[in-house]
Amino acid sequence: MSIRVGVIGGGQLARMMVPAAVNLGLDIRVLAEQEGMSARLATVEVGDYRDADTVLAFAETVDVITFDHEHVPQHVLRALVDAGVQVHPGPDALAVAQDKLLMRERLTELGLPVPDWARVHDQEELAAFLAEHGGKGVVKTPRGGYDGKGVRVVHGPNEVDDWFTALSEDANGGALLVEELVSFRRELAQLVARRPSGEVVPWRVVETVQLGGVCSEVIAPAPGSAGRLADTAEEIAVTVATALGVTGVLAVELFETDDDRLLINELAMRPHNSGHWTQDGSVTSQFEQHLRAVLDLPLGWTGCHRDWTVMVNVLGGPAEGTLDDRYPQVLGAHPLAKVHNYGKDPRPGRKVGHVNVAGDDLDDVVYEARAAAALLGAENA
Amino acid sequence: MSIRVGVIGGGQLARMMVPAAVNLGLDIRVLAEQEGMSARLATVEVGDYRDADTVLAFAETVDVITFDHEHVPQHVLRALVDAGVQVHPGPDALAVAQDKLLMRERLTELGLPVPDWARVHDQEELAAFLAEHGGKGVVKTPRGGYDGKGVRVVHGPNEVDDWFTALSEDANGGALLVEELVSFRRELAQLVARRPSGEVVPWRVVETVQLGGVCSEVIAPAPGSAGRLADTAEEIAVTVATALGVTGVLAVELFETDDDRLLINELAMRPHNSGHWTQDGSVTSQFEQHLRAVLDLPLGWTGCHRDWTVMVNVLGGPAEGTLDDRYPQVLGAHPLAKVHNYGKDPRPGRKVGHVNVAGDDLDDVVYEARAAAALLGAENA
Repeated sequence: MSIRVGVIGGGQLARMMVPAAVNLGLDIRVLAEQEGMSARLATVEVGDYRDADTVLAFAETVDVITFDHEHVPQHVLRALVDAGVQVHPGPDALAVAQDKLLMRERLTELGLPVPDWARVHDQEELAAFLAEHGGKGVVKTPRGGYDGKGVRVVHGPNEVDDWFTALSEDANGGALLVEELVSFRRELAQLVARRPSGEVVPWRVVETVQLGGVCSEVIAPAPGSAGRLADTAEEIAVTVATALGVTGVLAVELFETDDDRLLINELAMRPHNSGHWTQDGSVTSQFEQHLRAVLDLPLGWTGCHRDWTVMVNVLGGPAEGTLDDRYPQVLGAHPLAKVHNYGKDPRPGRKVGHVNVAGDDLDDVVYEARAAAALLGAENA
Repeated sequence: MSIRVGVIGGGQLARMMVPAAVNLGLDIRVLAEQEGMSARLATVEVGDYRDADTVLAFAETVDVITFDHEHVPQHVLRALVDAGVQVHPGPDALAVAQDKLLMRERLTELGLPVPDWARVHDQEELAAFLAEHGGKGVVKTPRGGYDGKGVRVVHGPNEVDDWFTALSEDANGGALLVEELVSFRRELAQLVARRPSGEVVPWRVVETVQLGGVCSEVIAPAPGSAGRLADTAEEIAVTVATALGVTGVLAVELFETDDDRLLINELAMRPHNSGHWTQDGSVTSQFEQHLRAVLDLPLGWTGCHRDWTVMVNVLGGPAEGTLDDRYPQVLGAHPLAKVHNYGKDPRPGRKVGHVNVAGDDLDDVVYEARAAAALLGAENA
């Protein structure tokens, strides 16, 4: 019988694990939130990932459990571990990805570089932090944020009163995270994979371009990163993965500050948008590596096929029709473009696919990837 | 709704179309011969491809029909076309792949280089051919042969009496194909894809190594082929694809003779073992290109990631256990190896998977690929 991998969550990350699973002869099963999701090509069961009984029953059909997202509640994760299920990443690591306050605490304890931050319970505490940071800051809800949601730049202590009110009503201690507004030159992401027995393998650090908090474009490797920058980014991510006991792919989002420091922005413990370029640019894709890691199999080589790989997201998609209606045009004009279509209906702002292009001239590669994404109806290209 | 591709046949070629279909957001459906076949990860229906009603009903669920093998009978193919189904490759092209006598006739009419051949109905005609060719030859049954089956080297006219007897009982005219025994330096394969509107795109010509009529190893591109050899091979395959109206991937197996000629050995009108290297060595894999071609979408770039890619088949597999039992060892020792596991039970002589390795030093690449295949239990490595 084949090795069976169970993925909780039916989005495009689960979907993109399918090709890697097919190649390696793994049996991939998905617990999806609803019918017809992006990962519908795998063996799909529909159920609520917040319900321990549902998830335990799903876990009985597989050899290891991993994730399309980080939202499975701790009590469900603990129930799995208590039942002897292999869960990767495990509850302790995921707790840090699930709570931004916990994340800042742990990273600070580890001596890793993060923006100045504080835990604030009310306007007064927030005002004190802002007063020390030029009257401005970034406030984040500790839980549930992604793609720019749950993040607000503030210039005064009364701009997140709605969040204070909401938090005072839940059980999370009623605190928000406030951070200094970092002056950064650009954003980077460092991906690594780590397996339970300890092996950690990085990819090259990449530059990410965000639009309104959503990833728009990734350049791999980050231009001008060879040497100190790459070494520092790698060291940070390896430290995080090892110290937190992350298993599977870990993405560390970084600011490259105007004064040449690297500061950790966010962590993600799963395949990540900033690693989609690996599908067509690296000997081992992040999806294959994630499966190898969660199965505690030796990790693959992460060298690049060409000097540059650029990924451009397709946000939104065509105003009329579907992505594949554009194939005659886009494939005809861009034979180098690798189109990834998540099988979702186009909708403004929605990630419906991406394009990868690899080559040795960065200008050409960027042009091809953006032009192909634009023909697919990307709002961002 | 997604574009739906129907594949007749549930073997590893159908299976390996799945990753390409996932990436492009195509819905792939397979009509398999039985439960649990290699392509079981796709949406699978089980049915007899020799039954027109079964195949017509399957065709109603998809937008185009293509194939994992070339054995669908002409009457079934014609019924599909008559019902208005898009069938690629079509019946006329497939007829040439299905009957080796018809193939030799058409290739000869087209003025393409083939070994000397004759249609022989009995011992006497065979004896006459052998007398003109040094007393030896290769006899082939016109239909149903593959992987060395239905092919016999003879040194006298009475060595295929069993086949003459069998043929006299069927409706195929009771003839066998006899060919000269070509003195060749090595075997090559030239793959191209052609789409209905006429575009044809080749990959680089490759060297194939056969063991007992079964493909064991492929080196891409064929060493020393740049220039005349590559141009000639490409010209032959483009001519065949265009003249026969092939749609999808066409593989032309070639002999490079001791006196420096290229002669056509066999044709295959589907993704082919000699093209598996493209999964990890070319910007566009043969499986993606086949899907694009049968949907009449513009074809992708077929450049290579690295100077060399080597594919080694895993014939047989481990004597005990399964392929994935060997993963800790093989993936640990060979981080560059891309393992493809068809999800079949190991059995002597059976193709159960393959390994691709790409790099810039041919000796290293060959070594890595063979060593990885050997650890997977390949009888041939």
